[in-house]
Amino acid sequence: MFFASDNAGPAHPDVMAALMTANAGYAMGYGADAIMDEVRRQVRDLFEAPEAAVYLAINGTAANAILLGTMTQPWQTLFCSDCAHIHEDECNAPEFYTGAKLTLVPTTDGKMTADDLRAKIAAEESRGVHGPQRGPLSITQVTEKGTVYTLDEISALTATAKDFGLQTHLDGARFANAMTALGCTAAEMTSKAGVDTVSFGGTKNGLLGVEACVIFDPALAWEFELRRKRGGHLLSKHRYLSAQMQAYLTDDLWIKMATSANARCAQLAAGLAGNNAARILYPSQANIIFFEMARAEHKRMLDAGAVYYVMNGDADKGPADEPLIGRLVCDWSMTEDGINRFLDLLNG
Amino acid sequence: MFFASDNAGPAHPDVMAALMTANAGYAMGYGADAIMDEVRRQVRDLFEAPEAAVYLAINGTAANAILLGTMTQPWQTLFCSDCAHIHEDECNAPEFYTGAKLTLVPTTDGKMTADDLRAKIAAEESRGVHGPQRGPLSITQVTEKGTVYTLDEISALTATAKDFGLQTHLDGARFANAMTALGCTAAEMTSKAGVDTVSFGGTKNGLLGVEACVIFDPALAWEFELRRKRGGHLLSKHRYLSAQMQAYLTDDLWIKMATSANARCAQLAAGLAGNNAARILYPSQANIIFFEMARAEHKRMLDAGAVYYVMNGDADKGPADEPLIGRLVCDWSMTEDGINRFLDLLNG
Amino acid sequence: MFFASDNAGPAHPDVMAALMTANAGYAMGYGADAIMDEVRRQVRDLFEAPEAAVYLAINGTAANAILLGTMTQPWQTLFCSDCAHIHEDECNAPEFYTGAKLTLVPTTDGKMTADDLRAKIAAEESRGVHGPQRGPLSITQVTEKGTVYTLDEISALTATAKDFGLQTHLDGARFANAMTALGCTAAEMTSKAGVDTVSFGGTKNGLLGVEACVIFDPALAWEFELRRKRGGHLLSKHRYLSAQMQAYLTDDLWIKMATSANARCAQLAAGLAGNNAARILYPSQANIIFFEMARAEHKRMLDAGAVYYVMNGDADKGPADEPLIGRLVCDWSMTEDGINRFLDLLNG
Amino acid sequence: MFFASDNAGPAHPDVMAALMTANAGYAMGYGADAIMDEVRRQVRDLFEAPEAAVYLAINGTAANAILLGTMTQPWQTLFCSDCAHIHEDECNAPEFYTGAKLTLVPTTDGKMTADDLRAKIAAEESRGVHGPQRGPLSITQVTEKGTVYTLDEISALTATAKDFGLQTHLDGARFANAMTALGCTAAEMTSKAGVDTVSFGGTKNGLLGVEACVIFDPALAWEFELRRKRGGHLLSKHRYLSAQMQAYLTDDLWIKMATSANARCAQLAAGLAGNNAARILYPSQANIIFFEMARAEHKRMLDAGAVYYVMNGDADKGPADEPLIGRLVCDWSMTEDGINRFLDLLNG
Repeated sequence: MFFASDNAGPAHPDVMAALMTANAGYAMGYGADAIMDEVRRQVRDLFEAPEAAVYLAINGTAANAILLGTMTQPWQTLFCSDCAHIHEDECNAPEFYTGAKLTLVPTTDGKMTADDLRAKIAAEESRGVHGPQRGPLSITQVTEKGTVYTLDEISALTATAKDFGLQTHLDGARFANAMTALGCTAAEMTSKAGVDTVSFGGTKNGLLGVEACVIFDPALAWEFELRRKRGGHLLSKHRYLSAQMQAYLTDDLWIKMATSANARCAQLAAGLAGNNAARILYPSQANIIFFEMARAEHKRMLDAGAVYYVMNGDADKGPADEPLIGRLVCDWSMTEDGINRFLDLLNG
Repeated sequence: MFFASDNAGPAHPDVMAALMTANAGYAMGYGADAIMDEVRRQVRDLFEAPEAAVYLAINGTAANAILLGTMTQPWQTLFCSDCAHIHEDECNAPEFYTGAKLTLVPTTDGKMTADDLRAKIAAEESRGVHGPQRGPLSITQVTEKGTVYTLDEISALTATAKDFGLQTHLDGARFANAMTALGCTAAEMTSKAGVDTVSFGGTKNGLLGVEACVIFDPALAWEFELRRKRGGHLLSKHRYLSAQMQAYLTDDLWIKMATSANARCAQLAAGLAGNNAARILYPSQANIIFFEMARAEHKRMLDAGAVYYVMNGDADKGPADEPLIGRLVCDWSMTEDGINRFLDLLNG
Repeated sequence: MFFASDNAGPAHPDVMAALMTANAGYAMGYGADAIMDEVRRQVRDLFEAPEAAVYLAINGTAANAILLGTMTQPWQTLFCSDCAHIHEDECNAPEFYTGAKLTLVPTTDGKMTADDLRAKIAAEESRGVHGPQRGPLSITQVTEKGTVYTLDEISALTATAKDFGLQTHLDGARFANAMTALGCTAAEMTSKAGVDTVSFGGTKNGLLGVEACVIFDPALAWEFELRRKRGGHLLSKHRYLSAQMQAYLTDDLWIKMATSANARCAQLAAGLAGNNAARILYPSQANIIFFEMARAEHKRMLDAGAVYYVMNGDADKGPADEPLIGRLVCDWSMTEDGINRFLDLLNG
Repeated sequence: MFFASDNAGPAHPDVMAALMTANAGYAMGYGADAIMDEVRRQVRDLFEAPEAAVYLAINGTAANAILLGTMTQPWQTLFCSDCAHIHEDECNAPEFYTGAKLTLVPTTDGKMTADDLRAKIAAEESRGVHGPQRGPLSITQVTEKGTVYTLDEISALTATAKDFGLQTHLDGARFANAMTALGCTAAEMTSKAGVDTVSFGGTKNGLLGVEACVIFDPALAWEFELRRKRGGHLLSKHRYLSAQMQAYLTDDLWIKMATSANARCAQLAAGLAGNNAARILYPSQANIIFFEMARAEHKRMLDAGAVYYVMNGDADKGPADEPLIGRLVCDWSMTEDGINRFLDLLNG
């Protein structure tokens, strides 16, 4: 009954096996390993982008920060949602790598609308050299609230950015979960929807710790490489990153894992919906659920061995009937049995 | 015959096995895993520093940059050798993380003397607010030329820094090779010699990619954690770093690997010394050799399958008899047979 | 009829005379001039802070950025109003000098409430190392909307910050106008109300270009000096800054100028209030008025020679009856006659 | 007998008069004043560069740092002399504004040779993404040792930089003194000699505090403006900068002042050359002299009222016969009588 995070589960055995296989003999470092050549081909195929620059990073914060650093000037302001991971959960890494600031766009269920985005971009118009200049847009897909932008919604956001000459970054820490939920291709959710760069997550979906950074305009490649190195993010024994990503993209492993995580989450959501004590807060469209429930009920679940975060208070301290928000995340390794045990416990 | 770098060889099987073992079930992320508790204990024991703050980083550049960022103010100048890795090989990562500049101390065989260091520190004395202020000292051990500071030499350097109220960082990317060469303890080479923080390398000595950051004054711990996160260097699935370091420090695996690498290198150095065409440039005291040889000889070796870097020219282009510098590095996995084949080829 | 900005008028003749007087013979540079000794004494007396560190800067952006840089760590978030000059009008200078980000507190008439501030500070509580850490508060007095915080309001804001261990900076680009409006002392509006550092403006109130930076805790003085130099803001011929500030603080010149500007603005506000076409948007409590009026009316005024900014559109393009916001600012040199001409024209 | 610095003397009366004249009525701020239009024309004429972008800054550090920030990427290394003001006397301002590092080229009498520069640039060649990338060259003219590069020497340095695709910045804090010494035009010393940007000093030559920033490629103009604002260096009441520079460039005032300063310095140098106790260290080619003399002699001069810096020790403490280095700088206001009194005192 472990729902604390999709980065707390194990790596998939196929990924571990790929690591073992990669661990033979000598290999050139710093991304010049042969496995990375294969990964580059896989990612370009996946995104239908034969010219794209492809790199690997150790986590989502690094992928986001280096990509945004490459896209942004230090006198600009980035546009992102008011609950964006780059705003709330990266301890100023985006500011460190860009020198810029962030303009927050309001959200409903974790999603920005094109109209709200347009209003925020337009508002940065009249101050000349005095105000921050407009910088790129960053979208999170799956959003931080567990919802998923439709392809039309993504296209509307990127088109709005392009109206002002701005590029778009997609923070895809849960890319696979979103794509699976939408039933679309990777290209449809990115380049074909107007996205310019992608943090293509793997860590939350069965890897030990690897994200791909995809840049559709190869002219930015060399700057990315220099910024990656300057940030201390170029790995010498790079093959161990490559091997993870290669296994991930082989035989649709990544899609299978995300499909499973989403299915478990849907099963969990259905169970919560049938429980009177719990109230789901946002449409659960991928592998995350936020729900509200009385403190005493949270305490009962946690004491009985369920593991998840209570977001806005302490389950142990305070009025028993005060509603608190819990977050449940399913990863690839979650079993039907785990879900059933959680729901049985909940339904008491 | 692969001597290009000690970060091109495989990880040790025990390390891979530890990764496998760690990959069971759920584990709290971001350094809160149980294995890290054990690593923290191991490292503190090793350095005889029960209060030390201990963290893991993915590579030497990250370890150096975050530690130096924690020790340095942006209006200071760091003191390091004129061939320091932080100066030559980190693409301004130290400048990025500190905001400061570097003052280069001249070297012989890769080593600074306390007198030269004192002169450089003293020279930053008379400019008040106009000049950079004095910042910490950084020493590399094993040096970039393959030599090893004696304990007395380290103590003399740190004492010089302390005379000016300055702290000392030790870049120990090849810590194990140096310690083994000196036959001392980790504490003797660091805290007992006046060192304040250590980049304790593992990547070049049989790990997939982990260094420990050791800070003897725990008052700096929280700032280090914030700087690590802000640099994008805090890993969610941290257990995979912890497991590597745990295996490394268990049953003296790290010492055994370094001992082997050093022994192979000594064998190689002895062979080179007996060859008339090659001239060793610096005392080879750990696992690196720089040697000078005519271009044609380099070309012959490389064409025959030896792999190593020619540092100052192209083995394929230029006068046949022009002397060029080659660098040979032995890692833990280098075999006696590999050395013999190289030497047989050389002695042709 | 020039109401575009209080930084567009001339310097006061007494200030020019002081410059002339200062221009005799040699003087030590970089703040070691004798006039600065006198300024330091004047400012400390004014703020009843005999230990305060006192420096001069060339403009408000520099004063704010260097002070905030001295008070803030790069992993923090500063708290300020959603219309703060440091947020909207300094092209990321605060981000450049601090490395941090800004958290925007909502405002009514340009003013934050202590409750809203508390909510924003409290919201930064639960993310540990992942989120930005809480940094200082910055208040603007006179606010960007022309309103003035009461002493109680300032005290409530600084007390809220102190509840979380945070310091407070006061951006006093129009310090004199606010103090005059409140009828209080400089100390009452700052140190006695819990403020820790002050950008004490002079440029908008009759100087050529000087602000004082006042730091009540002298322990921060040396860091401020280093940050000032590193930002390129330490002037060699410093006496020309000192002379301006000395004249400003002599014989209450600064208060006389602000009193006059405020009085002219009150006269103007009274006139606008009696005009049916114009609607004042915020209580005009110092020397700034924002008012709404139909485009055609703005155009008529501007064409007839009135000079002021229309903030949210083009007076020449668009529907004649669309309401647009104009901003009127009075400086020390504005005459009653200028006001009368403007009002006569308006009342046409 | 004030020889401490050319930034310690008064401003020229014509400059003060221009300030007074400028102080009439209202003027648009931030560089949109009418006087700046005239300055722009004057500077473009002077440099025979009708397209050049021209800005004003408050001091040399700001001019250098903002120009270098506009020319440099944060992963590069700037090339400059080992005694460059940007290296020794700006407290990391160049590093702050560029994010880059500095590579020091050795000097004789304060001057780099093209061969030494070439060697340093060439040495940054073989490290790919690991090492800093090559950035622009910065030359100081008059050098920090009081010598003046010939036009051929400047051309040789810029041509060397251009061989590697690098641009050149000229730090002309004492531009007028150098140009006068060479008897050339401003264009000959800059654009015609391959220089790309210039810090054109005024502060050390009779202004209160203004330098012009000249950028021959106007494509960099907007970035410069944003960097200037972000650094807090855009002045609202800009006319007071403009007026200084306008007066400076009117009727060759700047040349007359520099000619006088150089002549006084030559008179002083001739006197020192005839004195047995003093030894001039570098050819004094503009308005600065470094000389060596016994401590007791320095003490005698200083006690008798001469004012200058002893660079490498304390005139009051130490062996009487130990040689110490003194620095003598003449500004425009130095009189023949002042020189004669100093020499009479010296010659006892």
